[in-house]
Amino acid sequence: MSLATYPPYSAGKSPEPPRRDSKWWGWGDPSIVPELDGPALETLRERIGELRPTSPLPELAGFDLPPAEALPPALIEAVGEENVFTAVEDRLRHATGCGYVDLARLRSGKLDAAPDAVVLPADAAEVKRVLDLCATQGVAVVPFGGGTSVVGGVEPLRGDHDRLISLDLARLRVVEVDRRSLTARLGAGLRGPEAEAELGKHGLVLGHYPQSFEYATIGGFAATRSAGQASSGYGRFDSLVSSVRLIAPVGDLETLATPHTAAGPALREVLIGSEGIFGVIPDVTVRVRPAPKQRRYEAWMAESFEAGAEIVRRLAQGPGLPDVIRVSDEEETEVSLALSGPRGFTGSLFGSYLDLRRRRGGSLVIVGLEGDDESVARRQHGRYQGPYLRDTLMSMGAMVETLETSHTWTELVGLHAAIGGAIRNSLAGQGTPGLVFCHLSHAYADGASLYFTFISRSREGAEVDQWCQIKRAACEAIVAGGGTITHHHAVGRDHAPYMEAEVGRTGLDVLRAVKQQLDPAGIMNPGKLLV
Amino acid sequence: MSLATYPPYSAGKSPEPPRRDSKWWGWGDPSIVPELDGPALETLRERIGELRPTSPLPELAGFDLPPAEALPPALIEAVGEENVFTAVEDRLRHATGCGYVDLARLRSGKLDAAPDAVVLPADAAEVKRVLDLCATQGVAVVPFGGGTSVVGGVEPLRGDHDRLISLDLARLRVVEVDRRSLTARLGAGLRGPEAEAELGKHGLVLGHYPQSFEYATIGGFAATRSAGQASSGYGRFDSLVSSVRLIAPVGDLETLATPHTAAGPALREVLIGSEGIFGVIPDVTVRVRPAPKQRRYEAWMAESFEAGAEIVRRLAQGPGLPDVIRVSDEEETEVSLALSGPRGFTGSLFGSYLDLRRRRGGSLVIVGLEGDDESVARRQHGRYQGPYLRDTLMSMGAMVETLETSHTWTELVGLHAAIGGAIRNSLAGQGTPGLVFCHLSHAYADGASLYFTFISRSREGAEVDQWCQIKRAACEAIVAGGGTITHHHAVGRDHAPYMEAEVGRTGLDVLRAVKQQLDPAGIMNPGKLLV
Repeated sequence: MSLATYPPYSAGKSPEPPRRDSKWWGWGDPSIVPELDGPALETLRERIGELRPTSPLPELAGFDLPPAEALPPALIEAVGEENVFTAVEDRLRHATGCGYVDLARLRSGKLDAAPDAVVLPADAAEVKRVLDLCATQGVAVVPFGGGTSVVGGVEPLRGDHDRLISLDLARLRVVEVDRRSLTARLGAGLRGPEAEAELGKHGLVLGHYPQSFEYATIGGFAATRSAGQASSGYGRFDSLVSSVRLIAPVGDLETLATPHTAAGPALREVLIGSEGIFGVIPDVTVRVRPAPKQRRYEAWMAESFEAGAEIVRRLAQGPGLPDVIRVSDEEETEVSLALSGPRGFTGSLFGSYLDLRRRRGGSLVIVGLEGDDESVARRQHGRYQGPYLRDTLMSMGAMVETLETSHTWTELVGLHAAIGGAIRNSLAGQGTPGLVFCHLSHAYADGASLYFTFISRSREGAEVDQWCQIKRAACEAIVAGGGTITHHHAVGRDHAPYMEAEVGRTGLDVLRAVKQQLDPAGIMNPGKLLV
Repeated sequence: MSLATYPPYSAGKSPEPPRRDSKWWGWGDPSIVPELDGPALETLRERIGELRPTSPLPELAGFDLPPAEALPPALIEAVGEENVFTAVEDRLRHATGCGYVDLARLRSGKLDAAPDAVVLPADAAEVKRVLDLCATQGVAVVPFGGGTSVVGGVEPLRGDHDRLISLDLARLRVVEVDRRSLTARLGAGLRGPEAEAELGKHGLVLGHYPQSFEYATIGGFAATRSAGQASSGYGRFDSLVSSVRLIAPVGDLETLATPHTAAGPALREVLIGSEGIFGVIPDVTVRVRPAPKQRRYEAWMAESFEAGAEIVRRLAQGPGLPDVIRVSDEEETEVSLALSGPRGFTGSLFGSYLDLRRRRGGSLVIVGLEGDDESVARRQHGRYQGPYLRDTLMSMGAMVETLETSHTWTELVGLHAAIGGAIRNSLAGQGTPGLVFCHLSHAYADGASLYFTFISRSREGAEVDQWCQIKRAACEAIVAGGGTITHHHAVGRDHAPYMEAEVGRTGLDVLRAVKQQLDPAGIMNPGKLLV
């Protein structure tokens, strides 16, 4: 896979149907199908039991989607007929995100809902025209970036409306670099590697590397408050944003791109994380940096997860926090490196891990420090293979899912135990005991994130129910422990029921008031963030 | 002056009338009355012309205030009679902030408006009760922290209401320290030195040092997005806040104190900077640090302001930005150190400045780096004398005012010239040519702040009109140049007319919708931020 394989959208043109460069039934490049090797498979069976391969994947041609409603002709005219896609494949590719439960539903060969059409506006002016028409004609709009949401963020929920479009922003590709101020205005439709390639022409880097980097977009990073691998160093995406623009059904909103302002509440922070419910973010101005040259990784074993967390707390509260940081708990240390195989970022640590492995019960601590000469292409190897491996595991009959939170250092270790316990209990209660492991990957002076992975046998034909039970148990443990419902996956559909625990009744009312002001017809991404 | 002179409010008690420990007609400790020495005075006369001392200060006893309306008895009952103050002195002390135009009005012996009473609630529960009663009885509420606003933030504007109280938060003094997570919940009423003294008991420091530090409060820092001397190192106050609580007329809102969250728009950032228009901030949870030991200052001369700004840009875009930074333009370099006299922070540089001074036309660059052993007491000397000196200058017949903005590195030097030109033109047009100087004091990777000071003869009896003309010229130059209307002084009454330029019509409508949701009766700080 190389950057050249990304679809060559150019401003104002959409020469091919959108998002056809990835598996329709799984993650990423169709040519990448990792296999699980002997020892990893053995470990897996040891821990979750014998796996039974699933039925073969359904045929795309026979996929069962509800029929599409016709769009208002004026809407088709607004962007040009050639930028409106209604084929089953295109509707399908815009009907889900990339969470486990999304993929499980795709593998079933049937979806209960899909957009009536995929619409690709050429620029911000066309977005505005589309929203105007949708508001007057009562058409729901799901803004669509990379489609990599793992929380149901692009679920085609219609709210009170009969029709729904997926507004794919792939053609919004503005790039304006201010080399002197180290800022760049970047179009919402640029994928991670595309944005870095554009900045690379100026010797600059954005440095935002979530696991979805290959397919996720600038607009999605902003709309979901994304956080990436190097967030301890470069900052979360929200801290990289200097200003943001919103096209709302009622009008445009753009914040000033000055480095700081004390001019009242920060509307920038209202638009960031708005997940498409207020309007469309056509572009953002971000802080960029001169390209670093090399990243050096170091790893060592701590006695326990708690001891590893303590090491990182001291780093985070001192002057020099590494830009990449990760503490795996005992279970993740024991298992996940074996599962991820001997390739890439973790793979380079594989040998030392195997040596360390004899000392069971320890916790692996990895830190990365920037030095010089690492290309984006090299970075892509390894780090981004997790979601590919998930497809392999799913085909073998396994459920694989992740979830995350954050809390203060004081509460962190207790919350880790509570969430892990809740997931284990739920798995055991369903007769599918499994692996539950976690790492600490984003450290702050006052606390850190916890990132859980769980793997078990899937309950064939009841995958959604199985997943819902576990998800609910984990979310309730997070809320009971006072953690945030999401450190960086966003709210979407899945976390919306927990927003009252997050911001309270009054906070929800404020968000609803903002929504009502910007989108009085309620067409923007119904059923997400606020329920 | 020492910490011990701060009024010994203790939880639940208000043993003396509020805010009686400072000059009623000027800034700070009444015992501090700096004098201007020979060379400084000479420089001043050279540049702004002969000064004519103003008439003597008015007598407090004969001060002309509008009569006070009676409060609803239930309101007095809610906090206890002993916590409601209606003496002329107390109403007067809560009728203005500390901007030049506030002091000019106080010196006139007459104010057109004052609160009907000063009310001191004991805690958050009493704040809630007071707001409930005010909402039902139609009493406007101005939340009052240190009263140090320089933008009319505590101006007693009644909106649609006949009665108005100043809600002095001096008794809200919660201190809860989480040493392990390096966070602390601090009550809104704690003044800067009081908060640092409390944290000092734990070996911690907040490290937020605006020029108003001695009197400004934690609640005010949060409500106005304050920035302090060491903001390049420690971060602006908004970046120190981990969570915030709001008591609004419709209910309470508290954000989670986790280190990061992706759970939607950041309501924390809606409450920070809300300047009392949504409700009262009773306390905030902030990130604190182990106390540093010493600060070392270095200074050198750059060829020009532009060259000095370039040095700082490179520091800000590299790995190690000093925590204190200041670049004075040519005029400030030439004059302001002479005016501020041989004491304190700038005073310690006075000698080297005098040496450098022969090389006219240069720009002074000062950086401060933290090492070990500096007490808050020592820090107080010098740094905070600017506002005291203003009183001296005003008594001599001078106008002294400051204003500030920020912009990207690309636009900064051009904006500096435009604002300076606008102020000079306005001063000259009024027949009072003066000194107009500026420093760059908050540096970011993408830009910096500009902090202007101007000094001229005052037009006796027409001070307000004189100031309004200059302020308008400067604000229009800021807006035309795309800078923010305020980097850290906040919006208040003075900058409210420029908020549409800052956030646009749609942005204003969003802020109004939030206000309407939280304060439907419109009792909270009428006439500020939104007009």
